[in-house]
Amino acid sequence: MENRDERIGNTSSDPQLVNRHGSKKSKEVQEEENHQADQLSVEQTFESQRVPSWQEQLTLRAFVVGLLLSTLFSFIVMKLNLTTGIIPSLNVSAGLLGFFFVKTWTKFLEKTGWLKQPFTRQENTVIQTCVVASSGISFSGGFGSYLFGMSETVAKQATDFNDPQNIKNPHIGWMIGFLFVVSFIGLFSVVPLRKIMIVDFKLTYPSGTATALLINSFHTPAGAKLAKKQVKTLGKFFSFSFLWGFFQWFFTGGDDCGFQSFPTFGLQAFANRFYFDFSATYVGVGMICPYIINVSVLVGGILSWGIMWPLIGNKKGDWYSETLSASSLHGLQGYRVFIAIAMILGDGLYNFVKVLSITIISFSKETRNKRNEVLPVVEGNSAAITPLSYDDERRTQMFLKDQIPTWFAVGGYVIIAIISIVILPHIFHPLKWYYILIIYIFAPILGFCNAYGCGLTDWSLASTYGKLAIFTIGAWAGAAHGGVLAGLAACGVMMNIVSTASDLSQDFKTGYLTLSSPRSMFVSQVIGTAMGCVISPCVFWIFYSAFPDLGQHGSQYPAPYALVYRSMATLGVEGFSSLPKHCLQLCYVFFAASIIINGIRDSVNKKWSQYIPLPMAMAIPFYIGSYFAIDMCIGSLIIFVWQKLNKTRADAFGPAVASGLICGDGIWTLPSSMLALAKVTPPICMKFLSSSTNAKVDAFLGS
Amino acid sequence: MENRDERIGNTSSDPQLVNRHGSKKSKEVQEEENHQADQLSVEQTFESQRVPSWQEQLTLRAFVVGLLLSTLFSFIVMKLNLTTGIIPSLNVSAGLLGFFFVKTWTKFLEKTGWLKQPFTRQENTVIQTCVVASSGISFSGGFGSYLFGMSETVAKQATDFNDPQNIKNPHIGWMIGFLFVVSFIGLFSVVPLRKIMIVDFKLTYPSGTATALLINSFHTPAGAKLAKKQVKTLGKFFSFSFLWGFFQWFFTGGDDCGFQSFPTFGLQAFANRFYFDFSATYVGVGMICPYIINVSVLVGGILSWGIMWPLIGNKKGDWYSETLSASSLHGLQGYRVFIAIAMILGDGLYNFVKVLSITIISFSKETRNKRNEVLPVVEGNSAAITPLSYDDERRTQMFLKDQIPTWFAVGGYVIIAIISIVILPHIFHPLKWYYILIIYIFAPILGFCNAYGCGLTDWSLASTYGKLAIFTIGAWAGAAHGGVLAGLAACGVMMNIVSTASDLSQDFKTGYLTLSSPRSMFVSQVIGTAMGCVISPCVFWIFYSAFPDLGQHGSQYPAPYALVYRSMATLGVEGFSSLPKHCLQLCYVFFAASIIINGIRDSVNKKWSQYIPLPMAMAIPFYIGSYFAIDMCIGSLIIFVWQKLNKTRADAFGPAVASGLICGDGIWTLPSSMLALAKVTPPICMKFLSSSTNAKVDAFLGS
Repeated sequence: MENRDERIGNTSSDPQLVNRHGSKKSKEVQEEENHQADQLSVEQTFESQRVPSWQEQLTLRAFVVGLLLSTLFSFIVMKLNLTTGIIPSLNVSAGLLGFFFVKTWTKFLEKTGWLKQPFTRQENTVIQTCVVASSGISFSGGFGSYLFGMSETVAKQATDFNDPQNIKNPHIGWMIGFLFVVSFIGLFSVVPLRKIMIVDFKLTYPSGTATALLINSFHTPAGAKLAKKQVKTLGKFFSFSFLWGFFQWFFTGGDDCGFQSFPTFGLQAFANRFYFDFSATYVGVGMICPYIINVSVLVGGILSWGIMWPLIGNKKGDWYSETLSASSLHGLQGYRVFIAIAMILGDGLYNFVKVLSITIISFSKETRNKRNEVLPVVEGNSAAITPLSYDDERRTQMFLKDQIPTWFAVGGYVIIAIISIVILPHIFHPLKWYYILIIYIFAPILGFCNAYGCGLTDWSLASTYGKLAIFTIGAWAGAAHGGVLAGLAACGVMMNIVSTASDLSQDFKTGYLTLSSPRSMFVSQVIGTAMGCVISPCVFWIFYSAFPDLGQHGSQYPAPYALVYRSMATLGVEGFSSLPKHCLQLCYVFFAASIIINGIRDSVNKKWSQYIPLPMAMAIPFYIGSYFAIDMCIGSLIIFVWQKLNKTRADAFGPAVASGLICGDGIWTLPSSMLALAKVTPPICMKFLSSSTNAKVDAFLGS
Repeated sequence: MENRDERIGNTSSDPQLVNRHGSKKSKEVQEEENHQADQLSVEQTFESQRVPSWQEQLTLRAFVVGLLLSTLFSFIVMKLNLTTGIIPSLNVSAGLLGFFFVKTWTKFLEKTGWLKQPFTRQENTVIQTCVVASSGISFSGGFGSYLFGMSETVAKQATDFNDPQNIKNPHIGWMIGFLFVVSFIGLFSVVPLRKIMIVDFKLTYPSGTATALLINSFHTPAGAKLAKKQVKTLGKFFSFSFLWGFFQWFFTGGDDCGFQSFPTFGLQAFANRFYFDFSATYVGVGMICPYIINVSVLVGGILSWGIMWPLIGNKKGDWYSETLSASSLHGLQGYRVFIAIAMILGDGLYNFVKVLSITIISFSKETRNKRNEVLPVVEGNSAAITPLSYDDERRTQMFLKDQIPTWFAVGGYVIIAIISIVILPHIFHPLKWYYILIIYIFAPILGFCNAYGCGLTDWSLASTYGKLAIFTIGAWAGAAHGGVLAGLAACGVMMNIVSTASDLSQDFKTGYLTLSSPRSMFVSQVIGTAMGCVISPCVFWIFYSAFPDLGQHGSQYPAPYALVYRSMATLGVEGFSSLPKHCLQLCYVFFAASIIINGIRDSVNKKWSQYIPLPMAMAIPFYIGSYFAIDMCIGSLIIFVWQKLNKTRADAFGPAVASGLICGDGIWTLPSSMLALAKVTPPICMKFLSSSTNAKVDAFLGS
């Protein structure tokens, strides 16, 4: 979850996906200068095509496809939310599948002769934007983190503050309401700034650029051919992954049954969460994520479950009470959760400071340049200093054609803020109206920071801003007044604004590079967000109803970040008193280590830094174990071997295979949860027993 | 087992393996005429190489490699014997691996400068002959059929005649003695006839020709390169298959545990023996066997376990007693075994008559031609009618250079026959000396028939002759005088002679085509046979000691043909009285059907006959179920898809992949049985329970 905003989603995956399309393009993403020089001819190749008006870009078919894909991706993102919280970027899949659906449809219409409007790249961008906005809600809605962290299930595991004041069980009604109230405000906050970000500062937005390149390439004849093959590959692996999920289902007739409990490396390793769980999803995720992420996760898993937890486990009775339940935060579980939090916070703090300072330095430089640039214009030789390329000229012209008035943006923001201030305290009683007002006053600034930082580095720090809100509002409300719930709710409000701001900026960049109108982008975002506000809670509700042990530690859907977020809120309200013995010292060590490792990564040569693991990625298995790390490393291995055998094919089809694996398994969760809702039990239990236990069971069954 | 001699081994697999080496070669195998025309230049390409003397062909390194490979293949053949009895031809693997070992060794010596003698194709043929002779004993020794059929384990299942008189439990001592006494006599019986078979009648011997072509191709530069690549592929899949076997082992800590009990298609299907048991061996076997064999096996499985047995099972209490144990031959098991026997006998009879008539017709034609041919020679223009090609001339010259005197052959036969007649009654008391004498009087004639028929059709009917012995000698000895044991022992004596006769003829053909001396072939066969007489019983003894449930119906090593052979002996001694109700009628139907299907196969167009299943292949799953049919069909599917994708690669590397899978899994049985002998239990049991049983077990384990 966490990581989608912070690293895995944006920084690493997307540029990599682009890298895999060839070295030329990868340079373009990394160096904006080169990009402009290399791509000089892009808009010339598209010159013959008329750019449709912004109303024409918004077609019904685009939104129908958007709705379909939104549902698909909501399931996938929700599954990922609730299993490990690691979410790779699905932009490429969205682009590919969007292209595929509309192209098939228009091909069909063309044959019947009913085709009125050809399929343009602008329309493709609209679909992509809509899907990203909608499925983004599945993440920023906090179903795997703050929102579900409010529930009784998670509260019980956290031991403290499980009083009614600090608990709000999920219900589809208030969740939809909450999302509608908080999700749109971010859109308005960034609209007035788009020209500064895109045209004036020429920020990179690597993910947005990557998506735009992909869409542009699809709409050239050669690109369309490759895209067709990629879609075919995706389809093949989609089917395989779906059928594999279906096949696995038959063997899960009971607790700890099936391939998810396969003790690949033996029962001892299984008890310490080292096993390959045959999840097509995480093998796919591993194929998309860069090697260093996968290795980091594995290193984290070995460090924690292989070394630290067994050692701390030996201190049972000394460091913590023997009588505690296995999931109590005052026992071993506490070390797991709080050390993970320390690393996440250390990493977050480091990157916050880093991105903020880059932002400030760059911003002040830009504004200085801007002032210098304005002068020559006044003097009448504007083109002398920075001559605009044909592409840039045309793109800027199109981008500035359809304006969104500033009064509309500001007005929208104020109105939604007022509605929000009125309604939210009714949903979360401890969240007072003045907390919300304060958040809404600071939010646009933070949103701008995040959008700007994201444009430079591709890192969205939304969840870090969210944690900021947890600690500040939580502490402000205090233990006596439902501080935990207030903190979590504030986190939601903050995260939605900040995350939307960066997402929309990415989309504006994509729109800029595909000559899509900012107005159609905005409308598409609004529609997509509205879809997401309904689809995501519904999808979550299906999971929640179908799997009664959702959120339980060690279950199929442990929703690891829910407990992490709640524990952070507890920490903010209560301080460190709740931690078990020596836990705080260990937290300090890992907090510092996280900052130091990041520092080393940034200071040493790139040749070396690529071998230094990422603290953020290392933190995830601390809590849930390293089974998914095994999956991801197998994904890495597949890509590695494939690249050795045939680099060109691996680069072209690797992401398609990965997307197929992820999507197929993700969509299988739909029938799977339906079956669970209908109380259909799988017929077989594939059980793993030690030889001695088996002898007992055989004797029992024989008698 | 059965099928190695009758169909799968020779007729189908080998020619197919050759076919896969390219259409040109396949023509050569099928039409001797074409062969001679196409291959005109073979001996010219080899002209520069001196043909080593027969003593030089027999090198120490050849027999060291032969010993190694014999052990490997004995394990593989034994495993196949004891699991299903289907044994594909391993000649190609033997040729490949023999080439690889000696080539590596000579390369190494070449570098050190110590190489005295280069690696020639004659030496390669010697290795191949030695390995085939040795591992052939694993089959004709009857460890999966007549020999093990004498044991108490099998006798208990057969219900009748399980008195001490009719039981002889396996023991390494008498087994080695028995094999030494009966295995060599066949060699002598065929030696005098080799010139007639090979030079005068120019019989095809497809398997022998195929092997010779392979060896010849290895020793040309291009062939050596391809062979190297094939060996690499074989090595890769060998390792994979070995590791897969190792991995599977960990999960078999108990009865019905592990991948062998994986209910791939559900528990209901599993109960009826429809499941994929993840056996690399049978996937490999499926890749080598022609599609029609695999499909036949599957059809047989569906017909029997899918339709007939459930229907007959419904008659329980009516057709057969309800109180019988599941493995009693008077119950459902009786239908399974005797209907399978009926089909096997029907098929055997049909082919016996067919091959015999072809043999007689062709033989009389040949002798007539011969007489005609002799005349012109007398008249002084021998070359006028059939001009010999350069290849033929040179091969015939080399073949006739080293003679084996007829007195030596006849003398050897008589001496061994006398030894045999003296010793065998001491091993098997019911087997009187005059039974053996009678067998040895008729055996050379039957051996000649078999060698001749095999040369024409590539079908060795050894097991059919063996069955003949079971029925005749068994009935002669009678129920009161241990007729069952006498019949089984007589089967062994007969099968060994007849099977060796055809094997050696195949080898002579290989030798002829590779310019190897008949003497070196003969010596190599003798040494190989001696190796086999020691290795095979030892390997069997390892299995027998390591797996106490060997031969039990439904266990890992059910040795299906042991019970089939014993039941045939019972039938021969006792008549049909032992069969359950309506079983005899059903047997008649299937006996007739078997003959009719064969008749239709031979009478219709080849276009249609390729879609008609083979009764012999259909009979196997009748008894043991169709799990291995699933494996084999998956093998077929792999080859099918591979050929669709890239026919050239599939044809060149398919057999190597298959051999790798078979060899790796086969050799894993060595450490596996060592572990079993050392009483090391695998740590985990992968168990498959129905959901309801699982709930009970969970409750039991929880309490």
